[in-house]
Amino acid sequence: MSVTAAKGFLAAGVTAGIKASGKKDLALVVNKGPDFNAAAVFTSNRFPAAPVQWSRKIVAGGEVMAVLLNSGGANACTGAAGYADTEQSAHWVAEQIGVSPEQVAICSTGLIGERLPMSNIASGIATVVAELDSDGGSNAAQAIMTTDTVPKMAQWKDPAGWSVGGMAKGAGMLAPGLATMLATITTDARVGLEVLNRALRTATSLTFDRADSDGCMSTNDTVILLANGASGIAPAEADFANRLAQVCRSLARQLIGDAEGAAHDVEVRVTGAASEADALEVAREVARSNLFKCAIFGNDPNWGRVLSAVGVTQAVFDSDKVSVLFNGTPVFKDGQLGENRSQVSLDGREVVVEIQLAAGTSAASIWTNDLTYGYVKENAEYST
Amino acid sequence: MSVTAAKGFLAAGVTAGIKASGKKDLALVVNKGPDFNAAAVFTSNRFPAAPVQWSRKIVAGGEVMAVLLNSGGANACTGAAGYADTEQSAHWVAEQIGVSPEQVAICSTGLIGERLPMSNIASGIATVVAELDSDGGSNAAQAIMTTDTVPKMAQWKDPAGWSVGGMAKGAGMLAPGLATMLATITTDARVGLEVLNRALRTATSLTFDRADSDGCMSTNDTVILLANGASGIAPAEADFANRLAQVCRSLARQLIGDAEGAAHDVEVRVTGAASEADALEVAREVARSNLFKCAIFGNDPNWGRVLSAVGVTQAVFDSDKVSVLFNGTPVFKDGQLGENRSQVSLDGREVVVEIQLAAGTSAASIWTNDLTYGYVKENAEYST
Repeated sequence: MSVTAAKGFLAAGVTAGIKASGKKDLALVVNKGPDFNAAAVFTSNRFPAAPVQWSRKIVAGGEVMAVLLNSGGANACTGAAGYADTEQSAHWVAEQIGVSPEQVAICSTGLIGERLPMSNIASGIATVVAELDSDGGSNAAQAIMTTDTVPKMAQWKDPAGWSVGGMAKGAGMLAPGLATMLATITTDARVGLEVLNRALRTATSLTFDRADSDGCMSTNDTVILLANGASGIAPAEADFANRLAQVCRSLARQLIGDAEGAAHDVEVRVTGAASEADALEVAREVARSNLFKCAIFGNDPNWGRVLSAVGVTQAVFDSDKVSVLFNGTPVFKDGQLGENRSQVSLDGREVVVEIQLAAGTSAASIWTNDLTYGYVKENAEYST
Repeated sequence: MSVTAAKGFLAAGVTAGIKASGKKDLALVVNKGPDFNAAAVFTSNRFPAAPVQWSRKIVAGGEVMAVLLNSGGANACTGAAGYADTEQSAHWVAEQIGVSPEQVAICSTGLIGERLPMSNIASGIATVVAELDSDGGSNAAQAIMTTDTVPKMAQWKDPAGWSVGGMAKGAGMLAPGLATMLATITTDARVGLEVLNRALRTATSLTFDRADSDGCMSTNDTVILLANGASGIAPAEADFANRLAQVCRSLARQLIGDAEGAAHDVEVRVTGAASEADALEVAREVARSNLFKCAIFGNDPNWGRVLSAVGVTQAVFDSDKVSVLFNGTPVFKDGQLGENRSQVSLDGREVVVEIQLAAGTSAASIWTNDLTYGYVKENAEYST
């Protein structure tokens, strides 16, 4: 499962005492080779956390032997001391598994602006190394959870004999610019660095980048992809890219399905756009409208709030030709009142809002959630 | 008070039966001259409501004799039939008070996507004309309320003998691009069209444009300013502009103070910016962060959420030099951990979050609110 679905990867997840709850909070993923190719995408936030600054340098080297991930603290906005903590952690891992610190990537998630408890990290690293297992993917996925209620895992086992598997955590602050939240993906396919980078960037742009739960971009977003070639098989680039995107899509949907306090999973689908960029701009504007998101929580197909969001974009459209459909029912049709909103039921968890711009042939979707009491509660009552 | 603070204006507010609640829902403001100069700013939303389309044409003519305003329905996204309704209303008012329909501006607010009950409007117009009074400003302010809990009124009586007064309604969907919500402002100063336009645009850009309760821009935002010269006094342009801005600022602050479900009024102040545009971009990004807004509701000075919002902007700054203060306490100082967040109390209604960019000498503020159970409730339970 998860990051150990592919051959030649070990993982573990343990309790290091970083979280006050006593739940698992430290995960390690180790690549046993023969290749150590790696690609990654990181947050574009201009306050990147210490582990992001570190891992960006490590991945640029092209070889990653291990990824250490902790929940319970983001180690963001912690200055030079926080960066030294990340570097120290990489050294401890390197020492324990016999690699160079410059081959160890680090990911952290949790509250911004607090130092990590380094003595717990030190003893936790010893424990997590001792528990490394070729079946440890599920434990690792549990150890990176914050306000997630379930671990997120996905995999593809190709009939040809190679696999892609991954894990992710999300829950809040979910609106990537480049990457999103923490995700580690592994494959035993033989894939060179150039293809690996290209496939990862394409996959994240189509999946994680289109999940937007609350419009807030984190300081720690990291997606790391490790490829070790252990299957001995080199799939065609398109084949590999498609399966990687499939695993990323599954993880991204799981993130939206478990977003903080969410009662509905919403696809905002824009069709008939003059360009894909237009479609994305419109979809994201609607997905970020708090009034729209509250209406969905109230099972109210309030298409006026959809149009008022569409109306602030720069996308090409003629307001007299736009249509809006809730779960397939055209409540606004060709710029005029459509079927009565009472025809629409939003009782189910899944909602599809389609905006037909009638301006071209491009389309794109953003996946989002409703805005609920639960979201406010989780983010008002606790520092996370 | 309100729109009747200045000489030569009559107003009234009555129950026309547009709102199911039976509360006041139709207001009329009439200018008795001698001048009939008018200026206005409207929503930049690309789905402008029928009354916005109509009033934009009327105000372009430069003379406005009356403004009819209704709550209980926005008459937005209602197509050609909705536009005909607006035109019909202007004709009815014109007939009753003996002016041309092309001198009657119309404003509407309420649910998007429903036609207005025209027989109620017809009889309501007769009633509201009968009740016109030089002391009717307060009733008019009440009649334009939607989810507002209190009417919003402001005035300046200049010792020299001229006045500016106004009313506004807001509550939700508060994030103007050009203007905001509905506001009507009157003055008996003698002010020419050019100065009137310039003063209004400056005033709105510094006040209503900087109120951003929930990031959602309405289809109906309208600010209309009427000047009749009845005082016989022509103040200096700077003097008039300052007092107009003062009245607008008071109304804008009243809107934020009564925003849907709000428990805190928040000034997001950005200082040390390289430009005013940078300061506004940063302030608006923070003001629109749902995570930040929820933290404020929870009395949590979560500066990490401030920085993560600052970090998605394009403003000039060096992350190592930024500071964040909550109510004056520097919780993040020169890119490093500052005083402990426990030093900050957010118990009061007013919160000032200051972001010091250390990149220049420009500054600007956005006024916003926290995100609360009340906001979700108001916008989930009712179609408004």
